Amino acid sequence: MAHTDHFLAETAQVDEAAIKPLPGSRKMHVEGSRPDIRVPFREISLSPTKTSGEDEQNPPLLVYDTSGPYTDPDISVDLRKGLPELRRTWIEERDDCEWLEGPTSEYGRRRASDPMLAPLRFDLTRTPRRARPNADGSNGNVTQLHYARRGIITPEMEFIAIRENQRRQRLGTDEVERILGHQHAGQGFGARVPEEITPEFVRQEVAAGRAIIPCNINHPETEPMIIGRNFLVKINGNLGNSAVTSSIEEEVDKMTWGIRWGADTIMDLSTGQNIHETREWIIRNSPVPIGTVPIYQALEKVKGVAEDLTWEVFRDTLIEQAEQGVDYFTIHAGVLLRYVPMTAKRVTGIVSRGGSIMAKWCLYHHKESFLYTHFEDICEICKQYDVAFSLGDGLRPGSVADANDEAQMAELKTLGELTRIAWQHDVQVMIEGPGHVPMQLIKENMDKQLEYCDEAPFYTLGPLVTDIAPGYDHITSGIGAAMIGWYGCAMLCYVTPKEHLGLPNKDDVKTGIITYKIAAHAADLGKGHPAAQRRDNALSKARFEFRWEDQFNLGLDPDTAREYHDETLPKDSAKVAHFCSMCGPKFCSMKISQEVRDYANARENEAKEPGTGANTQVASEEEVSAGMEEQARAFREQGGELYREV
Amino acid sequence: MAHTDHFLAETAQVDEAAIKPLPGSRKMHVEGSRPDIRVPFREISLSPTKTSGEDEQNPPLLVYDTSGPYTDPDISVDLRKGLPELRRTWIEERDDCEWLEGPTSEYGRRRASDPMLAPLRFDLTRTPRRARPNADGSNGNVTQLHYARRGIITPEMEFIAIRENQRRQRLGTDEVERILGHQHAGQGFGARVPEEITPEFVRQEVAAGRAIIPCNINHPETEPMIIGRNFLVKINGNLGNSAVTSSIEEEVDKMTWGIRWGADTIMDLSTGQNIHETREWIIRNSPVPIGTVPIYQALEKVKGVAEDLTWEVFRDTLIEQAEQGVDYFTIHAGVLLRYVPMTAKRVTGIVSRGGSIMAKWCLYHHKESFLYTHFEDICEICKQYDVAFSLGDGLRPGSVADANDEAQMAELKTLGELTRIAWQHDVQVMIEGPGHVPMQLIKENMDKQLEYCDEAPFYTLGPLVTDIAPGYDHITSGIGAAMIGWYGCAMLCYVTPKEHLGLPNKDDVKTGIITYKIAAHAADLGKGHPAAQRRDNALSKARFEFRWEDQFNLGLDPDTAREYHDETLPKDSAKVAHFCSMCGPKFCSMKISQEVRDYANARENEAKEPGTGANTQVASEEEVSAGMEEQARAFREQGGELYREV
Repeated sequence: MAHTDHFLAETAQVDEAAIKPLPGSRKMHVEGSRPDIRVPFREISLSPTKTSGEDEQNPPLLVYDTSGPYTDPDISVDLRKGLPELRRTWIEERDDCEWLEGPTSEYGRRRASDPMLAPLRFDLTRTPRRARPNADGSNGNVTQLHYARRGIITPEMEFIAIRENQRRQRLGTDEVERILGHQHAGQGFGARVPEEITPEFVRQEVAAGRAIIPCNINHPETEPMIIGRNFLVKINGNLGNSAVTSSIEEEVDKMTWGIRWGADTIMDLSTGQNIHETREWIIRNSPVPIGTVPIYQALEKVKGVAEDLTWEVFRDTLIEQAEQGVDYFTIHAGVLLRYVPMTAKRVTGIVSRGGSIMAKWCLYHHKESFLYTHFEDICEICKQYDVAFSLGDGLRPGSVADANDEAQMAELKTLGELTRIAWQHDVQVMIEGPGHVPMQLIKENMDKQLEYCDEAPFYTLGPLVTDIAPGYDHITSGIGAAMIGWYGCAMLCYVTPKEHLGLPNKDDVKTGIITYKIAAHAADLGKGHPAAQRRDNALSKARFEFRWEDQFNLGLDPDTAREYHDETLPKDSAKVAHFCSMCGPKFCSMKISQEVRDYANARENEAKEPGTGANTQVASEEEVSAGMEEQARAFREQGGELYREV
Repeated sequence: MAHTDHFLAETAQVDEAAIKPLPGSRKMHVEGSRPDIRVPFREISLSPTKTSGEDEQNPPLLVYDTSGPYTDPDISVDLRKGLPELRRTWIEERDDCEWLEGPTSEYGRRRASDPMLAPLRFDLTRTPRRARPNADGSNGNVTQLHYARRGIITPEMEFIAIRENQRRQRLGTDEVERILGHQHAGQGFGARVPEEITPEFVRQEVAAGRAIIPCNINHPETEPMIIGRNFLVKINGNLGNSAVTSSIEEEVDKMTWGIRWGADTIMDLSTGQNIHETREWIIRNSPVPIGTVPIYQALEKVKGVAEDLTWEVFRDTLIEQAEQGVDYFTIHAGVLLRYVPMTAKRVTGIVSRGGSIMAKWCLYHHKESFLYTHFEDICEICKQYDVAFSLGDGLRPGSVADANDEAQMAELKTLGELTRIAWQHDVQVMIEGPGHVPMQLIKENMDKQLEYCDEAPFYTLGPLVTDIAPGYDHITSGIGAAMIGWYGCAMLCYVTPKEHLGLPNKDDVKTGIITYKIAAHAADLGKGHPAAQRRDNALSKARFEFRWEDQFNLGLDPDTAREYHDETLPKDSAKVAHFCSMCGPKFCSMKISQEVRDYANARENEAKEPGTGANTQVASEEEVSAGMEEQARAFREQGGELYREV
């Protein structure tokens, strides 16, 4: 696709790579209490297990699906029109919003009326919504937290309950169910994931502030999702252009590519050209919540001079973005003037861009930032659109040396104070976390965050557990991400292989997303999230039975698995072969242990025959031994060839 | 390079990619108590830090170096001649060996005299050594454990002490040292790493069985290294051909490539053609210990029919390999007959090849395997060459579902019994571990291993923390590896992206090695291994100071880091630029926080001026605030441009 200079709104096209159904998969929906609650899933169909008797069916596996309408063959996505407004009716039924005549931000109006931008502009025909003011003239409140606290279960909450419960079905024969249903007890460190997620449970978690549902009323295209430690661990993928490189179309492609592989939310961190228009294209076409760091754009508006930032510029930017539909704002309001000198002796100072901008502003003006002094004003804006806070960790460590230091912990405490203020306004909050942290210090981050921030959801970047592997920081951080997810972190912000080195391209986005899906899923397993292990079990069963296609298709990245397999054994026949390239045909442990199983089963069946009296009790070791000897003899007499016929 | 069919011993050439010095690095040696103890390191030289005054020198960083003579410009490696015999004098000085006239194994003799193999054969002019028998006719013992228990500090032990201590130098100015020397307290879970590793400490750890030094007297080319939880965490890389693919030369290339990136040991898992000759080429050219699974080759000798295996065939194979110089043997002696049925209800049965071979043998013959019944005979062989045991976990789980089950734990207990038997013979032992284990069950593995096996070193494959990512199992396992390394695992067996799918090529080997170096180093940091953090600190300092080349060169893979950087900002000038492609020139947090530091320093210096009385005490918050306001004013008056001149 073309670069910004050549991008034309009227020719924008969806990335073909993003819309193909995944191999062996079909989109399906589970309907809720009303026909317009249709929760999307991906169903992976599996081939049967070959047995000596009748084939044994393997039930299809439902998996959580973030890819939105792109992988739905019934919907033809036209980027120029944007996605269907899934939540429109729900928002309107609440009857607490009003249509605005157009953007109310000064900047939004200017961009909307600039004829030079016409070729770049998304053609949005509707105008923004905002909460209708209360009778006393105060601002209305349309947040999910506001509803939750008043006991209202919204359609968004029910949608989420179904979505988080994808895993309940008991399917298959007893033997298949025994295998798929097995799950180890988890270690939850205080997480309390119920056996079944009900809409009421979703409401309670939101009401308690332990979970957030990022869903701006101006982003009705979103498929609701939840971020909280008693739900599935989520991941975020970042994208965004910079002054150096990238175009609108590339960024939209990264978004559709990222959600294909499992991004639960996307942050648009653009700092380059046409930030406003880029964001509009992304939001209109995104089925997942979009987060931003508004200070980036505000800084562009003052030509990059941090000290020239003002509350007025920032406020206008918040409104501009809220009216476009941004679902959560990173706000670095915890960077206080007195914390800044705490970073002077650090190895890597302040590495958060937002944090360093605010630090510079604070030093220059020698006062607290407008983010802090106007925090309640920001709450007033957020509540009218339901924009959630992602309270930024502007003083997060940029190296393991700086982990868990005074500056970081001081800011975290302030974020706790701000959390309580936001909650007074019924504005949803999550807390951002580091960064670079060696393994032995990760848990302290999680524990302190829960303590200081009253269990508001934690959302961390990595953390990277070592600094010595530029080019592999998806891995250094994936280790820390899995661990902190296990300890209770609700959302993991991905890191790509390009971290510290350059801007990610589409390949990097995919690698980052898959790495973080691994971390999030490992965390779900560690916490003992109910039935998280079904997918592992289904894949392992396929692996053991040499159902190669099923093994690929059950994986997070079927394409790469298939490609790697085919490098060594490219023939199609190899994919039904009962061996693989590692051992070759006559030397395969999986085959041998199939035999062990057949053998033990035969023994067990023999033991169960009437007259032995052993059918309801465990056989003694001697009995087992005797039974096995007999079997061994029979087996040798058959010629000792144990391999099953294919 | 050519395939086996075309491989010719006389034209074998070293892989050029493996012998280039790493960027910015030079080989250097630290001499011990005698001139032939010359311990290799890689020294990474760094550029100075630009300051407003004189440039500040950054001391070079010494790193542990597994690449052997390949990266030594003073040595020209000729694969056909093999590496120099570093340990020859040490072995001979002990005067407890004898030269054999030639291979004493029947198979070794047959291969040596087969004229058809001449084109493939490594031209080894020396004959094997073996421990000289004792006066009473019993077998001699040349193991490092045997020496250690008699209070002897061998040159190998001193070499290792120096090697593990690479990090002691205090270098640089006070400020540089403050940064480089900073290290967080570790959490060791019972590991006791002293501030300085002395030769006597090495001896004690070996004598206690808590560490092993794999160094067969027939592999005098090895640079001694140690595996134990009170030392740096080590990693192993696997290679080996299979019936399906690969050649001798490819495998040698994988070895030299693997050690270039940091493999501490290499296992040759060949199961294909010419296993004997492949191994000879690898050992003669390997500066790191080589491990094997002798049952693989034994099985080839009986044409792949597990039940045809005999003690005689196996014994001959052990002697054949011991006389070639294999440093450690994986022996699956813990697979007992009564444990086999415990695997029948597993999701993935027995996935260890060795384990499944032995299980089949046990079932067929209905008795305990010759590995178990002849275990003391195996000890008798190992002690005569100093081959260490790597007691194989033949019943390790092949899926998270099967983790920590009855079969696995039963076998582990038996491995503990075998450990004590081996120790009675002064044979060195480590214990292999899983496999596939969800995060919450990893620590139990480590704890049980320490308990059952009396703190013999643990050596695990991964573990993989989830099964759902074929194609990314270096990552699923890297997470588990970092964690179990932190908990006390002494060596981590790598997993490549091709795991479960195909045989790794050179790219996969490198990816696996780098991933495991990350895991091992993260574990060292977590345990608080003294000065492990120096490399992180040096890299982070370089990153903060925009010393791009230093950042690349201090990383585990300078080539990839540089390549990624150049994708976005290819110009050479970008590598001295004080910004990167992520933020662009005017929006850089690192730059801003440099300013914060300058600012805070200026403030601090001011506070220290005579007359303020604040030079020996911490300034109060009000004082800081007042000082800062003054600075801020001065700063604004200068025009508010804080960026340093480049």
